[in-house]
Amino acid sequence: MTVLVFLDPAHDDGRVVDASQPQLMATDLGATRGDGLFESLLAVDGAPRKERAHLDRLASSAAALDLTVPDAAAWSRAIRTGLREFAAAEPDQGHAVVKLIATRGVEGAGRATAWVQVARVPDATLRQRETGLKVLFLERGYDSTVAQRAPWLLMGAKTLSYAVNMAAVRYAKAHGADDVIFTSSDGKVLEGPTSTVLLAYDRDGRKTLLTPQLESGILAGTSQSALFAAAKEQGWELGYGPLEPRDLLEADAVWLISSIRLLAPVLSLDGQELRTSSALTAELSDLVDRFV
Amino acid sequence: MTVLVFLDPAHDDGRVVDASQPQLMATDLGATRGDGLFESLLAVDGAPRKERAHLDRLASSAAALDLTVPDAAAWSRAIRTGLREFAAAEPDQGHAVVKLIATRGVEGAGRATAWVQVARVPDATLRQRETGLKVLFLERGYDSTVAQRAPWLLMGAKTLSYAVNMAAVRYAKAHGADDVIFTSSDGKVLEGPTSTVLLAYDRDGRKTLLTPQLESGILAGTSQSALFAAAKEQGWELGYGPLEPRDLLEADAVWLISSIRLLAPVLSLDGQELRTSSALTAELSDLVDRFV
Repeated sequence: MTVLVFLDPAHDDGRVVDASQPQLMATDLGATRGDGLFESLLAVDGAPRKERAHLDRLASSAAALDLTVPDAAAWSRAIRTGLREFAAAEPDQGHAVVKLIATRGVEGAGRATAWVQVARVPDATLRQRETGLKVLFLERGYDSTVAQRAPWLLMGAKTLSYAVNMAAVRYAKAHGADDVIFTSSDGKVLEGPTSTVLLAYDRDGRKTLLTPQLESGILAGTSQSALFAAAKEQGWELGYGPLEPRDLLEADAVWLISSIRLLAPVLSLDGQELRTSSALTAELSDLVDRFV
Repeated sequence: MTVLVFLDPAHDDGRVVDASQPQLMATDLGATRGDGLFESLLAVDGAPRKERAHLDRLASSAAALDLTVPDAAAWSRAIRTGLREFAAAEPDQGHAVVKLIATRGVEGAGRATAWVQVARVPDATLRQRETGLKVLFLERGYDSTVAQRAPWLLMGAKTLSYAVNMAAVRYAKAHGADDVIFTSSDGKVLEGPTSTVLLAYDRDGRKTLLTPQLESGILAGTSQSALFAAAKEQGWELGYGPLEPRDLLEADAVWLISSIRLLAPVLSLDGQELRTSSALTAELSDLVDRFV
């Protein structure tokens, strides 16, 4: 089942509503303009993972959108309410997807609509983590420098306007692949539609973990960031792009990492098989499993 | 008041619902992913204007999104239901905004959510048509050729993912302007966030009306198209871009045209005053007023 908790000044811990009934106004700018933000985080045994990082990024998206949203403490209380309700309804589910959504609200009302949704992790998501991914490179249309000079493009913000991200994944599926890595018009590797790109080199026992640099206009990955911190403690070298497609083709392993699917190995790029490493995947997945 | 009519196979003419109550599921992909399409059209004295053009563009957006939506006849019946309800509630309003919205529906349900919304034309919209617009050029980030090679960017589709369009208008307002004309990364004039760019030259009595070419990845403007047809009948020459900012600075008049605000003169671009022509504006507005 799905649990919905609306953030509401009249209810300190959030207002639990019936998720089987309509709860949004049809005039909400989230629905009519994709004008809002979201976060997706994983909860394990009732505890949200990387909650602070997600709430920080939510605040950063809100700033980019010039949108006033509830404060972190209010989100935190609503998350706990949602997880408690979910655990009561689905006692056998150790894992849950927690979505935080805030929209600009009903047109003219000048007040954000904000809610927390808790649901099962989709089976397909779990499957992809195990089986790995066939990936297509698709052009994102932007060059890797535009984000810094054009804040109205909202490139570091996790907005509700995800139609292009969803269309890219549909395009991949229609062409025999599972997922996408976007490239910039100047040939740099950017990100997946719902994930961050990671690659590893393991040369003479010296292990390096790489990801595209944030300045290219990609979303700051909460999982990438947490994994980098954990890998550094284990003696890994860290590196930040610019990366090009051939860097991925030459790597010892490539993954897409995200909060729900976690670390998913990339098996091929545009039909070309990649090196994979079950040892490296196991080592890094072990670090990911210890995120709190 | 706002009238809402949901398209529903069980109700031939659409299902009228209470717009003061929540009518959308919080899990609708329109709200959580901006995954859907819309159209906005003007109705005058109960008659929708350019209905066929809007329904054709809606079908074209649906195809780009690979989204199955109700057919044109069902939309048409729901529009009439909405306009009848609106006229009963607001008998003094000769003009109304009719919005058509279709989303990918509730996650997992595999069925679009579709509705028609009828409401008053906002006063601010009417005012801008009269006073004219101060406009900023803002970079859209894409080059003018990407639309043709990257269909996943959905560039000719009118999707619900309008967060960037809205952010651009907010940016303009925060910088003393009213609206925006997007430019491509290769320096071409594209479109407004919710309008099409028009310019006119009047040289020795030979009048030419110009607009950026569709191949640059802009939305096909229903008002631009209808006005071009009407102006041609009146002896105007017609032209299609590529256009650059200096073409607008050198024109005898520049407008932004759209279905609700209609023909709004552009007074300045990036603070530089433009030539305006009340005679040309009156002549073209007269043609626009006769759209059916």
